[in-house]
Amino acid sequence: MCELLGMDCNTPTDIQFSFEGFARRGGHTGPHSHGWGLAFYEGHAARIFLEPRPCADSPLAEYLRKHAIKTQLAIAHIRKMTRGRIALCNTHPFSRELWGRAWVFAHNGTVRGIRRRTLGRFAPIGETDSEYAFCLLLEALRSSFRSRPRSARALRETIADVASDLARHGTFNFVLGDGRHLYARCDTRLCYIVRQAPFGRATLADDDLSVDFAAVTTPDDRVAVVATAPLTRDELWTHGEPGTLWVFRQGRLEATLPSPNPSVRRAKHP
Amino acid sequence: MCELLGMDCNTPTDIQFSFEGFARRGGHTGPHSHGWGLAFYEGHAARIFLEPRPCADSPLAEYLRKHAIKTQLAIAHIRKMTRGRIALCNTHPFSRELWGRAWVFAHNGTVRGIRRRTLGRFAPIGETDSEYAFCLLLEALRSSFRSRPRSARALRETIADVASDLARHGTFNFVLGDGRHLYARCDTRLCYIVRQAPFGRATLADDDLSVDFAAVTTPDDRVAVVATAPLTRDELWTHGEPGTLWVFRQGRLEATLPSPNPSVRRAKHP
Repeated sequence: MCELLGMDCNTPTDIQFSFEGFARRGGHTGPHSHGWGLAFYEGHAARIFLEPRPCADSPLAEYLRKHAIKTQLAIAHIRKMTRGRIALCNTHPFSRELWGRAWVFAHNGTVRGIRRRTLGRFAPIGETDSEYAFCLLLEALRSSFRSRPRSARALRETIADVASDLARHGTFNFVLGDGRHLYARCDTRLCYIVRQAPFGRATLADDDLSVDFAAVTTPDDRVAVVATAPLTRDELWTHGEPGTLWVFRQGRLEATLPSPNPSVRRAKHP
Repeated sequence: MCELLGMDCNTPTDIQFSFEGFARRGGHTGPHSHGWGLAFYEGHAARIFLEPRPCADSPLAEYLRKHAIKTQLAIAHIRKMTRGRIALCNTHPFSRELWGRAWVFAHNGTVRGIRRRTLGRFAPIGETDSEYAFCLLLEALRSSFRSRPRSARALRETIADVASDLARHGTFNFVLGDGRHLYARCDTRLCYIVRQAPFGRATLADDDLSVDFAAVTTPDDRVAVVATAPLTRDELWTHGEPGTLWVFRQGRLEATLPSPNPSVRRAKHP
């Protein structure tokens, strides 16, 4: 299985600390050695660093650990291959433009038989079930709204519904960004934390590295971090209920929606 | 004005030498200090490194100069801002997926009044006339063919025609990739060279760096390089006729098509 990481903040923040622990899982402390990707939003645009090789010994990942890129919204993924060969085209996160914004998506799980569904205007470049599902998700959004909906609520409810429908095919944990919100769906395993004043110290679960957030933040800062498994060992992470969509904005959990896992699926894919 | 660079090869090749000279123009020997981008294809997917800052003193550009990424198709751009503020969303090259392939586009010139044209399914994320024109170009391709045309000739002829039409708005030099071909349109200024056996020595125009290609190639290698201005001072570059589209594949100039500059434009924008 792959691992997901998302960060959403109310002020530009670097992802160094979280990425440090996360990167270790890409080949060192975890089995996720088939590629990695890290997307940084700047406004509605995103730049995405991708490598179809282990994150833990990647010079590019090392570069990113040393050169902080501050952002209000980041999405990362480390891959353990289940479907699709090791190749750039199969490396998460995937990105497409919709309504003049970059949408960025990373998936954990496998959605079987997804290719039986008919694509719309978005087509996968690679061979993963994940990218195929992302294309279907965006097509469903596009066909539900003539243009970008002004109602954030209508948009997130549609995302929750479409995700629930796609989850019929298997396991559909994901993190999704549109430059404004971070959407995170827990199907089987996902957790989050919101860091805000008073800030304390935290120690990585996969490393002995610790940081005193009080020393690197201002009292108004707020940072939400979503991950497949807790990244720190001395903070309280909230674990998601299966079939839940979280929506973060400006470092705050803005909404929690039901995005139920179809009961039929659990019988088919225990 | 911005500068363009494209490379198309029959074997995975690094772009270090060309990018070295090119990068110098981004702030040192040239005035192109408002951002840069470098796209590397791997099959039909591309990864794009972008920075809205001068290339010449960028640590990321330095990283790329030190860590060769081999590719058969690369597109690069350095920006001198004419339209749109300095921001990631306005940094070339731009990318969209069409027909399950990443299309990558970088533009040199200004196309005025382009926003009066109606967009289709592709929308710009940033504010440049360049990205707007790219969206129109892809929409024209999409609406001309139900799916990716099997005929490379039909595709390139359509690209030449659409480009000619868009050039009504101003100056439309560009490099465009689809993972298979490199399309390069000369409106006012573009040149190319094909390097093949017997390989010789070349010296950068912007630097004292020289390389003996014979030492780093095999006799079967073939590399086409397209640039706004010759990158080397001791090789013979072919300068494009205004209103020409070159199509490269596997390091070879596969076709040269007329893509005429509308005569009306020259009067309007001398």
